[in-house]
Amino acid sequence: MTKTEERDRALQARYGAGAAAPDIAWNDVVAGLLAHRTVRAFRPDPLPDGTLATLVAAAQSAPSSSNLQTWSVVAVEDEAAKRRLAQVAGGQRHVAEAPLVLVWLADLARLGALGRDQDKPTDGLDYLEMLMVGVVDAALAAQNATVALESLGLGSVYIGALRNDPEAVAELLGLPPNVVAVFGLCVGWPDPERPAAVKPRLPQEVVLHRGRYDPTLATGAIAAYDAAMAVFQAGQRMPEVGWSGAALERVRGPGSLSGRDRLRGILERRGFGLK
Amino acid sequence: MTKTEERDRALQARYGAGAAAPDIAWNDVVAGLLAHRTVRAFRPDPLPDGTLATLVAAAQSAPSSSNLQTWSVVAVEDEAAKRRLAQVAGGQRHVAEAPLVLVWLADLARLGALGRDQDKPTDGLDYLEMLMVGVVDAALAAQNATVALESLGLGSVYIGALRNDPEAVAELLGLPPNVVAVFGLCVGWPDPERPAAVKPRLPQEVVLHRGRYDPTLATGAIAAYDAAMAVFQAGQRMPEVGWSGAALERVRGPGSLSGRDRLRGILERRGFGLK
Repeated sequence: MTKTEERDRALQARYGAGAAAPDIAWNDVVAGLLAHRTVRAFRPDPLPDGTLATLVAAAQSAPSSSNLQTWSVVAVEDEAAKRRLAQVAGGQRHVAEAPLVLVWLADLARLGALGRDQDKPTDGLDYLEMLMVGVVDAALAAQNATVALESLGLGSVYIGALRNDPEAVAELLGLPPNVVAVFGLCVGWPDPERPAAVKPRLPQEVVLHRGRYDPTLATGAIAAYDAAMAVFQAGQRMPEVGWSGAALERVRGPGSLSGRDRLRGILERRGFGLK
Repeated sequence: MTKTEERDRALQARYGAGAAAPDIAWNDVVAGLLAHRTVRAFRPDPLPDGTLATLVAAAQSAPSSSNLQTWSVVAVEDEAAKRRLAQVAGGQRHVAEAPLVLVWLADLARLGALGRDQDKPTDGLDYLEMLMVGVVDAALAAQNATVALESLGLGSVYIGALRNDPEAVAELLGLPPNVVAVFGLCVGWPDPERPAAVKPRLPQEVVLHRGRYDPTLATGAIAAYDAAMAVFQAGQRMPEVGWSGAALERVRGPGSLSGRDRLRGILERRGFGLK
């Protein structure tokens, strides 16, 4: 397969067969990024020595807002702890089955402790802005770890469902006030007998705006994407529901948020000022 | 230079000379991630055709919470618009000088419009959880774009300071309610005459917790990191302030947040429910 064929095949997988493919630059790193797929089926094999240190070094190499490094990560390998996290996540079996679950934290406690140690005020931590900083820092770090683990042949799936019950996660992991789990990341060897596929995304013109935001709803593009998602779902033996109906069901109301409608109150009780 | 020497040199840059380096796996992707540096000095040269499409394809290949794709990006290349963004960011010259500024948005408006179009309720969008989803989606996408652009030899710097005045950004870019700029990303060719260096980070043991969160403040490790940062700052001809003092100054109180203490009120006025 030539590089051009490889690129065109990757773009077809990413945007759906038949979608107009953008003309993009191509190298091994871009190829790796476009080949990302969500892995939920893991072999039971352990990870090689040094894997965790590699992922953390990659994560720490991501940008951090004003270099505040307002994130931490807990590596969970204990079977009982993983089962408990799987429960919190609504019974997602892969959380218990992955050899490693990384729990990524927005961590404002470290700067708070540093301020107490150096007798300096840290009242700025009490603002919603600083929660944003912690969440962005944690996300940039985690995504670098994801890129690194895929380069090692490993697979992963993010677990936003840890936010279904942040208090249970905090109790399990001993999190102090001003620290909250943003999401988990299950890491392991992809099971070749249950392979994952690349999921199509919305056409570029829906997410990319040039110069100014275009608020026009691209109904034609979204209908085409619904069709591409149905093809993907058929290939995965999932119900062929498309995208827009499922996405709207997910944001229907507080009852469709799996408990996360309680997030603001929980954060306030866990010490975040959110001013 | 052997691969082992290359790795050890990268770890020294990332954790500071003399710091205990973790034993990590090594390949070209990990090497690229560890070599990340913040680029604020750009050559004026334009970007090659296809660069923007490449970065967006990489961004869209990042994971998205429940595949909701609650992010958008505005590509800003107009000189006057970049100058206005530089003003918002407290006069950061590189915002005006970079050939491309990407403004990454948490975008709940697309699902809102879709709900109106399909006559479905979207009351779930009114919760803090959904802002978190949008912010995490935007951050994962932007970091993939960052990895991609560095693989092409480009450099970048995140601009969190767009949150100094999200209303000015919204007006400039025509953002509708329920859309907010999370951060900008300046993209361009690094100026070889003003080279950037790899910034050291906290030792791994400070951010990585095994099994349970360890709330003990590692004062010795932080003192060593302050010293490593002072060496870095000296090399960059910056004031040798270390880390902890500067970080604490940044979170001292509302007055040290560069206007971002107003973020919650601004988000509420811009349509975010934050329930």
